[in-house]
Amino acid sequence: MTDSSKTLNVLGISGSLRRDSYNTAALRVARDNAPSDMNIEFADLSEIPLYNQDLRDEKVPAAVTKLVEQIIAADALLFSTPEYNYSMPAVLKNAIDWVSREQPQPFAGKPAAIMSSSMSLLGGVRAQYDLRRSMVFLDVHCLNKPEVMIASAHERFDEQGRLTDEDTKAHINKMVVALGKWTRLLQAGKQFQAGDK
Amino acid sequence: MTDSSKTLNVLGISGSLRRDSYNTAALRVARDNAPSDMNIEFADLSEIPLYNQDLRDEKVPAAVTKLVEQIIAADALLFSTPEYNYSMPAVLKNAIDWVSREQPQPFAGKPAAIMSSSMSLLGGVRAQYDLRRSMVFLDVHCLNKPEVMIASAHERFDEQGRLTDEDTKAHINKMVVALGKWTRLLQAGKQFQAGDK
Amino acid sequence: MTDSSKTLNVLGISGSLRRDSYNTAALRVARDNAPSDMNIEFADLSEIPLYNQDLRDEKVPAAVTKLVEQIIAADALLFSTPEYNYSMPAVLKNAIDWVSREQPQPFAGKPAAIMSSSMSLLGGVRAQYDLRRSMVFLDVHCLNKPEVMIASAHERFDEQGRLTDEDTKAHINKMVVALGKWTRLLQAGKQFQAGDK
Amino acid sequence: MTDSSKTLNVLGISGSLRRDSYNTAALRVARDNAPSDMNIEFADLSEIPLYNQDLRDEKVPAAVTKLVEQIIAADALLFSTPEYNYSMPAVLKNAIDWVSREQPQPFAGKPAAIMSSSMSLLGGVRAQYDLRRSMVFLDVHCLNKPEVMIASAHERFDEQGRLTDEDTKAHINKMVVALGKWTRLLQAGKQFQAGDK
Repeated sequence: MTDSSKTLNVLGISGSLRRDSYNTAALRVARDNAPSDMNIEFADLSEIPLYNQDLRDEKVPAAVTKLVEQIIAADALLFSTPEYNYSMPAVLKNAIDWVSREQPQPFAGKPAAIMSSSMSLLGGVRAQYDLRRSMVFLDVHCLNKPEVMIASAHERFDEQGRLTDEDTKAHINKMVVALGKWTRLLQAGKQFQAGDK
Repeated sequence: MTDSSKTLNVLGISGSLRRDSYNTAALRVARDNAPSDMNIEFADLSEIPLYNQDLRDEKVPAAVTKLVEQIIAADALLFSTPEYNYSMPAVLKNAIDWVSREQPQPFAGKPAAIMSSSMSLLGGVRAQYDLRRSMVFLDVHCLNKPEVMIASAHERFDEQGRLTDEDTKAHINKMVVALGKWTRLLQAGKQFQAGDK
Repeated sequence: MTDSSKTLNVLGISGSLRRDSYNTAALRVARDNAPSDMNIEFADLSEIPLYNQDLRDEKVPAAVTKLVEQIIAADALLFSTPEYNYSMPAVLKNAIDWVSREQPQPFAGKPAAIMSSSMSLLGGVRAQYDLRRSMVFLDVHCLNKPEVMIASAHERFDEQGRLTDEDTKAHINKMVVALGKWTRLLQAGKQFQAGDK
Repeated sequence: MTDSSKTLNVLGISGSLRRDSYNTAALRVARDNAPSDMNIEFADLSEIPLYNQDLRDEKVPAAVTKLVEQIIAADALLFSTPEYNYSMPAVLKNAIDWVSREQPQPFAGKPAAIMSSSMSLLGGVRAQYDLRRSMVFLDVHCLNKPEVMIASAHERFDEQGRLTDEDTKAHINKMVVALGKWTRLLQAGKQFQAGDK
């Protein structure tokens, strides 16, 4: 039987390296208000060099190896990303480009949820579907709903990066709970099929 | 317990109305070679008028009602679509636009798989991700892999619309089997969660 | 020399058939406030049947022929479209699918601008880039900026479909003026190249 | 009058850092067969760090400043990009993310063309439209046609990175010539409008 009391380990991945990033702040909100059966840790993309296959042929950088291990250990992924130039930022895409070269594929079969924060009125929406398309390639099972696009982020977070808007906090929480449920649904389904053979 | 011996009812939806459509032919291949625990029926989009909310306010057309009932009755969906003008064809989008207005949403929670056939070398790939994006809105769980893009379709089907290319047939079959497995995984997961409460 | 005093004929194409459509209303705003050197007429997509190549092989419908003639006669195109299911509506795609079959291609080389109206906070943004991608195939030169996404449309138009929000009116006007300038730039460039040979 | 005998300076930007990259090789083909009135130089993205606004607030890296100067000096841009994870690679997106922060915007108003090379049968097509969408934001005028997607690149280039497939060479040349014509068209149109005021 699936052990539904087991704590879910979720890896939060921010698409921004900026110290005061709204997207990283949104991940902290997700973590600090996560259900009691979920533990959210953060990936660190800052030390990953720009992808170059020649570099990889020499040696996979330690920061990539660390990220790969975290993804493998995670029950689910939580992306929080800005939108740059109407798509996902290079920082996030670079981490994906590195990890995508690993075999067996660390991302494969993982459940994931996506949120985006932006100072614009559109909340980063244009980044989300490109990320979803990359996840199709990597066989990640993205949560459909709720979708979280945090518009006018500078009006919702204070100068210390604390989310002051309760509706946004509730919306993030709703997605985190849905990710937990989606993760357990997929885990139970897989376990059933494994026993069914 | 999930009854894994239950026959899965799959609704095949072709994005082309053309009588000799390669995409409709690909659906027939899927149906004729389906596993013994799967039954594939076809939707008929030909009688659905162009979407107009004023028209809908008067009366939902019978062809739409029929499609809605078929979707509700289906365990899973199988889309087979051409690519027109680098996106999905109006014929398929029109059916989606009509069904999307229904509450409760007939598409919600359904598993689905997508294939595309095209005379071009790219096999309709540009239509697939727009369709996937629409499915995010409708909360459909699209199969990630395998992806089926049938390029140079006119060289793979004969004049009677029969698929003569064995590799393509095997590729379609692989996707149909994966759709069946994905459908049973989601059903088992949902059943587990329903019993878990 | 390019005759910059010549009136520009712009064809307005609405993606909604609804009588009280915000998108059609936005086209009326564009028309009623157009610069004195621009005349905006409207296409009628309501009588175009769902695309079926078999139907086309018999006879191109009169409503398609009319649209084709209007496109050929136009100096530029102005699309105004809702977003349905995270993409452009079938109504607009259907007109494009029919016209795309004509040779020589009526759309080829035309300048165009895109606006979208939606009751949502995102203003139809997800429809715009799919339409732009279709326009790449048809060799249409889409204006880059300004982009017009009219969010919360029901709060900006009154019950008679009149735009009551002055900022939105100014934004539409700005795009119409930019479309005129973009059209004359392309016309002057083409004329120069024609004379250059 | 536009001086159509003036040499056009085109900046080639490869989305791959790999020494034996097919995409960089395709740029060399473009350069070596360029028309006599066009000079193609290459950008170097290898020294650009991952974008971080905090880093930028300290100092814009020299490699970014160099790229910005090259873009400003260029009459047109020629992108050659692989497809990673169904979108453009981080390496290319990173250069765009850095340059997009500059004011006045170096990309604004530039003509551009896009080609992609891939070992897959799809030739990198999924990267091209995301790049085009970024270019809308940056007000770049992308050439519509011909589109160049070089599939099965490993069968078209030899071990020294030389293109051995004459059809592909001709296709690249056709696009380069079209880019030159598109650039001169836009330049003549702008010059006409400047004199028209």
